[in-house]
Amino acid sequence: MHVKRTDPEHVGEEIHELIERLYPICRSITGNGVRETLSILQQYIALEVHEVPTGTEVFDWVVPKEWNIRDAYIKDGKGRRIVDFHNSNLHVVSYSVPVHERMGLSRLKAHLFSLPEHPDWIPYKTSYYDETWGFCLSHNQLLALEEGEYEVCIDSELSDGSLTYGEYFLPGKRTDEVLIYSHICHPSLCNDNLSGVVIATYLAAWLRDQPRRYSYRFVFAPGTIGSITWLCRNEERLEYIRHGLVLALLGDSGKFTYKQSRSGNEEIDRILAHTLRHSGCDYSVEAFSPYGYDERQFCSPGINLPVGRLTRTPEGRYPEYHTSGDNLDFVRVGSLAESFSVCRDAIMAIESNACYLSNNPKCEPHLGRRGLYRKRGGDSDFAGMEMALLWVLNLSDGNHSLLDIAERSGMPLWEIASAVDELLLVGLLRACEGA
Amino acid sequence: MHVKRTDPEHVGEEIHELIERLYPICRSITGNGVRETLSILQQYIALEVHEVPTGTEVFDWVVPKEWNIRDAYIKDGKGRRIVDFHNSNLHVVSYSVPVHERMGLSRLKAHLFSLPEHPDWIPYKTSYYDETWGFCLSHNQLLALEEGEYEVCIDSELSDGSLTYGEYFLPGKRTDEVLIYSHICHPSLCNDNLSGVVIATYLAAWLRDQPRRYSYRFVFAPGTIGSITWLCRNEERLEYIRHGLVLALLGDSGKFTYKQSRSGNEEIDRILAHTLRHSGCDYSVEAFSPYGYDERQFCSPGINLPVGRLTRTPEGRYPEYHTSGDNLDFVRVGSLAESFSVCRDAIMAIESNACYLSNNPKCEPHLGRRGLYRKRGGDSDFAGMEMALLWVLNLSDGNHSLLDIAERSGMPLWEIASAVDELLLVGLLRACEGA
Amino acid sequence: MHVKRTDPEHVGEEIHELIERLYPICRSITGNGVRETLSILQQYIALEVHEVPTGTEVFDWVVPKEWNIRDAYIKDGKGRRIVDFHNSNLHVVSYSVPVHERMGLSRLKAHLFSLPEHPDWIPYKTSYYDETWGFCLSHNQLLALEEGEYEVCIDSELSDGSLTYGEYFLPGKRTDEVLIYSHICHPSLCNDNLSGVVIATYLAAWLRDQPRRYSYRFVFAPGTIGSITWLCRNEERLEYIRHGLVLALLGDSGKFTYKQSRSGNEEIDRILAHTLRHSGCDYSVEAFSPYGYDERQFCSPGINLPVGRLTRTPEGRYPEYHTSGDNLDFVRVGSLAESFSVCRDAIMAIESNACYLSNNPKCEPHLGRRGLYRKRGGDSDFAGMEMALLWVLNLSDGNHSLLDIAERSGMPLWEIASAVDELLLVGLLRACEGA
Repeated sequence: MHVKRTDPEHVGEEIHELIERLYPICRSITGNGVRETLSILQQYIALEVHEVPTGTEVFDWVVPKEWNIRDAYIKDGKGRRIVDFHNSNLHVVSYSVPVHERMGLSRLKAHLFSLPEHPDWIPYKTSYYDETWGFCLSHNQLLALEEGEYEVCIDSELSDGSLTYGEYFLPGKRTDEVLIYSHICHPSLCNDNLSGVVIATYLAAWLRDQPRRYSYRFVFAPGTIGSITWLCRNEERLEYIRHGLVLALLGDSGKFTYKQSRSGNEEIDRILAHTLRHSGCDYSVEAFSPYGYDERQFCSPGINLPVGRLTRTPEGRYPEYHTSGDNLDFVRVGSLAESFSVCRDAIMAIESNACYLSNNPKCEPHLGRRGLYRKRGGDSDFAGMEMALLWVLNLSDGNHSLLDIAERSGMPLWEIASAVDELLLVGLLRACEGA
Repeated sequence: MHVKRTDPEHVGEEIHELIERLYPICRSITGNGVRETLSILQQYIALEVHEVPTGTEVFDWVVPKEWNIRDAYIKDGKGRRIVDFHNSNLHVVSYSVPVHERMGLSRLKAHLFSLPEHPDWIPYKTSYYDETWGFCLSHNQLLALEEGEYEVCIDSELSDGSLTYGEYFLPGKRTDEVLIYSHICHPSLCNDNLSGVVIATYLAAWLRDQPRRYSYRFVFAPGTIGSITWLCRNEERLEYIRHGLVLALLGDSGKFTYKQSRSGNEEIDRILAHTLRHSGCDYSVEAFSPYGYDERQFCSPGINLPVGRLTRTPEGRYPEYHTSGDNLDFVRVGSLAESFSVCRDAIMAIESNACYLSNNPKCEPHLGRRGLYRKRGGDSDFAGMEMALLWVLNLSDGNHSLLDIAERSGMPLWEIASAVDELLLVGLLRACEGA
Repeated sequence: MHVKRTDPEHVGEEIHELIERLYPICRSITGNGVRETLSILQQYIALEVHEVPTGTEVFDWVVPKEWNIRDAYIKDGKGRRIVDFHNSNLHVVSYSVPVHERMGLSRLKAHLFSLPEHPDWIPYKTSYYDETWGFCLSHNQLLALEEGEYEVCIDSELSDGSLTYGEYFLPGKRTDEVLIYSHICHPSLCNDNLSGVVIATYLAAWLRDQPRRYSYRFVFAPGTIGSITWLCRNEERLEYIRHGLVLALLGDSGKFTYKQSRSGNEEIDRILAHTLRHSGCDYSVEAFSPYGYDERQFCSPGINLPVGRLTRTPEGRYPEYHTSGDNLDFVRVGSLAESFSVCRDAIMAIESNACYLSNNPKCEPHLGRRGLYRKRGGDSDFAGMEMALLWVLNLSDGNHSLLDIAERSGMPLWEIASAVDELLLVGLLRACEGA
C-alpha cells in the first residue's frame, strides 16, 4: 500500500506525486487510458473495475464505441513531425476517427484548433458523438504553418469495446451511503480532473481505517456517460444514498466553491457550508445550476439525489481551463493538501452530525458537581467548552442535530461534538434512536 | 376599428391621440361624461355598457344620485366670467349641488379651493357624499379677486339616474379569468386616469387577436363605488378570477411602481416583478397597503382577490397629481408606449406561465443527437439557449412553473418559453394536466 | 402604600430611592438578607414569601444550606481592620465558611481576589457549591499589604435553613399568565439586580390598578437555584404561562438589549421588538443563548417557556459589572424611568394584542357616513387615524392580531388599538372568540 501517512504537511506532496504518475496517460471516456489509470489507483485502494459493453442502453443514451489511439502527427513537406501526439496527447481531438492523408494547408486548417488569446497553450477538444477528426495546437504553431502539403496521421481505433469505471465500497454501521464521484475521462490535464481523482483516492484510503457510521462508495468514471451508466446500473441502490459529493478541480490556487444540490437545502449543503465557514479558507457557495460536471446527472429530476460539488475555481473561470496550461505546475501542493483537509473535515462532519437527547431536560443539570463547571461564580467571562456544554444541553431535545446546534451557537461542529462526548461520559446525554 | 397597429413606435402616439379625444369630457362617478367616454371606447373594443340605478344597495354602500352639469361660472360685478366651467371642468367641485346666487367675496371664499404652493394650477376636488358646492381655481386667480359682489352659478343636476360602467370580455381556453380594471371617473386629468383607461383599451384590442389560455375581463368603472358595485353584482363570478391588475397613472415620466396584492405572494405579484425586472425600465415593487385605487376593494378581506396594481409614479407623489397640471403635456408618448409594452409583456407572461413534465427525467436526455447541443466538447463558454434547455429539463418535474424556472435561472420567461417550444417539438417535454 | 405616582418624571426618582434603601443589605442565594429585602418590598406590593428547606430536591439540584454572616475582617499586625465587611459586603466571597485564624501574607493571598485592571473596585465573587472562604478587595488595597501576620475572621454560618423567595399574583380575565422574574440574590450591587427587582415591584404596583386581560405573576428569587426551585414547585402551573420576561440590569445608561426566547419567534419576542422599535430608545435584539440569567432555566428544553429577557447593557459587557463600581451612582434616574416605561408599554402591548373580525369584510365599509372619513375627496395626503382604520379593517379577517397589523402597517400598536376602539364603537368590528 502506498498511503504512508495523511498528515497535512505530507499529504499534499503525495497527492501531487500520484498526479505526476497519472499525468502522461491519454484518457478519454473509454479506452485503455482509463484502464491504466484505474490499475494505478488499485495500488492505493481495492477498486473494483467494471466494463460496460458498447451498445448498452443507459437511459436515453447508448454506451459508445471504445476509442484507442497509438500515434498521431502532422508532418511537413520535409517529413518533420511538426505536431506530435507523443509530445502531448492534447494534440488530438478526443475520439478522432483514423486518418492518414496528404493535404494542403487550407484543407488541413478546417481540422485545426488553437487559442489566439493564449498563443502558447494547446486547447483540449473532444468530439464524442460526431465522427470527425482534428488536431489541437498552440496558436504560435498554427501561425508558423506555411503553405504546402502536409501528411496527416491519426492512428486511432473506434470500435466495439466497453466503457470502464472503478468503484470502491467501504461498509459502515448503516446501510445508508455517502457517494463520492470523480470524473476520470480527461487526458493530460491536472486540475481537471486528476486533482479530484487523486484526492478521492486518498480520502478513501484514509477512511478505510476509520470507524464509520455511514457506508461510503467512491466512483471513478468518465464524465456524463459514466455517471449516466453508473446511475442506470445502480438504480435500485440509489435510495440508500443520503449524501453525495462530486470532487473536481481541487488543485488550483483559487478559493473553494461549493455548488449546492438541486434543492439547495440538503444536509450535505449545510455540512459543506459549515465546514468551509470554519476552515479558515476563502470560499463561496453557489446555487445549483444544470450545467457543470456529473452533478447534472445526479441532480436530474428523475434521479434527484442530495449531491453537491466541491471545486476550487469552477470550470471555465480560469484561463488554463481545458488547455495545456492545466499542467503539473498549475496544481499546487498546498492547495491539494488544503482540499484534502476540507474534504476529510466534511466527511467527519457527516459522521458526527447525529441527534442526542438530554437526560435532564428540566432546567440545567448541576454541571458543577460533575466537574464540568467553574467552581467560583461572579467572573464576567464565559466561553469555550462550558458554553458548548450549555448549547448541547439546551438544544438536545430531539429536534436539533449537532449541526443545528453548531450553526445556532456559531461554534464549529467539532467543538460541539467534543462537548457531546463529555456529556455522554457523565450520563447527561443519550443518542436519539436510529442515530 | 381604430387599432391600426400595436408596434411600440406608434402605439404611444395612438394612445396619446385617444387621450386627447377623451380629455375635454367632464367625467364623474356617474353621469353623461362617463357614457360619452364609454361610447368613444366602443369604437375600439366592443364594450358592454351597464347602468345601475340610483339607490341600489351594493354591500355597505348605496349607488348615489346621478350628477350632470351644463354650465358653471363666477361673474364679477361687471358681469365678466372670471371663473368658467367651459375653460376647465376642474373649476367645479365634482357633485356640486346647483346654485345661482349673488354673494360677497367673504361668503364666496368659503366655497373656493386653490393651491398656494402651485399658484397656476387648478386643484381637483370632489364632494360625492356631502351635498355642497364649490369652485376650484388657480391661486393667482384667487388672489386677484377683489371685494365686491359676485354672481355664482352652477347649473348642475343631482337626481335619480344610474351609475354607468363598461365591461369587455374575451373568452379563452379556460374559464379562469384575468381581470383588468381602470377607474374612469376623473374629469380632465390625463395621467389619472385616461392613461390607464386608454392603455387598457389598447391591451384589450391587441389581446382580441391573440390565442388565449385564460379568459380576460376588462372593466371601466368609477373609482371606489364602481368597483364596489361591480364586485357586488358579480360576486358569484369572483371565484374564476386567477389574476387581476388595476391600471392607473401610466403616462408620466416616473419609474414604474408595482403594488402587490394583499398577500404579496400571488402569481400576479411574481409575474409583474419578473416582467419589470427584465423590462430594462426603472421600477420598484411596493407592499400592499389599504389606501389607493380600486385594489382597496379587490383586496378587502371578504373579497381577497389576487389583484395587484401597476402605475408609474403613485398617487400623491408627483406635484401635478389631482391638479390641472396633469394635462396633455404631462403624459408622454414614450412613457405610454413603454407602459403598454410592460402590460402586454405581463399578459404574455401570465399566458406562458404553465407547468411541464420532462419525458426523460432520469439523467439528461441526449440533446446532441436531437440537434439541440453543440457537437464539439471542451469549450469553456456555455450559455443562452442550451442553458435554457438544461434548466427547463432539470426543473420540469411537475413542481416548477416556467416562472419558477425563469426566476431560478435568472433568465427572462420568454427565453425559457422558447426553450419549452423546442423541447415540445422533439418530444422531450409534455404539458402538465390542466395547464 | 408607598407607590404615590407612576408618572415618568417621578417614577425614576422613586425607583432610585427604593434601590438606595435596599443597597446596604447583604443578600445571597439564601439567608436573612433576602428576607429583609422581601419584607421591604412587601411595603409596596402584597408579596407572599415562601421558604423551601435545605435539602429539598429540585430537579437535578438540592436546596443548599442557608448562609448568614454577621461580621468579617482582616486585621494587620497592629490590630487595625484593613478589610472590613461593614464597609462593603462585597469584601466577603459569598457563602464563605467561617474562619478565624492568624496567618502570614502568602497563605492569606491564596484567599484574596482583586481586579488589577480596575484597581479601585472590589470584585464580587461567590462559592456556593465549593466550601471555602475568601476576601475580595481593591487591587490598591492588595498592593498595600505588607509582609507580616494577619488576623482573618469570617463570622458566618452555613447550616440547615431554607431558600426564600417572594411571589405576587394579580388575577386577570384569563387564567393565562404573564410571568415576570427578577433575581434577588446579589449583595450591594445596584444594576445587578436591584434595578430589575425594583422596576418589577413598581410594574406590579401599577398593574394592580389596571384592568387586566391576562393574569400576572411576579417572582423575586435567587438566580439559578431560585428559578429551578420555583419551576420544580410550580410544574403543574407552567402550562398557563403565555409570556414571560426576566428583568435585570435596567439602570445603566447603555441601550436596551432584548434577548429572545429559545425559539425566537414567540409573541413575547415580537412584542418586545415592536415596543422597543417604537420607544424612541436605542436598542438591540439578540438571539437566545444558554448562558445568562434565569432565562437559562425557563428556556431549558424540558421547560421551554416563551420567556425573554430585557436588560440594558447585558452581563459582562460593562466594566462595573460584578464590582463595587455597580453602585448608586452607576444606576441613573433617567435610565430607570425609561426602563419602567418600556416595560409598562410592553405589558400594555401584551394586553392589547388581540384579534378582531370586520363585520363588513366585503369591500370597505362606508366610513364617511359614520363620520370616520374626510368629507371632501381629491386631497393628495392621507395618513394617521384614517390609515389606521383602513389597516384594521383590511386585516381583521381572523388571521391577524393587532401586532400583525401594527407590524405590517409600520404603525405603533397603540395607534392600531385606538383605531380598533373607534371601529368597535360604530359596530364595524367585533372581537374574535376567546380574545
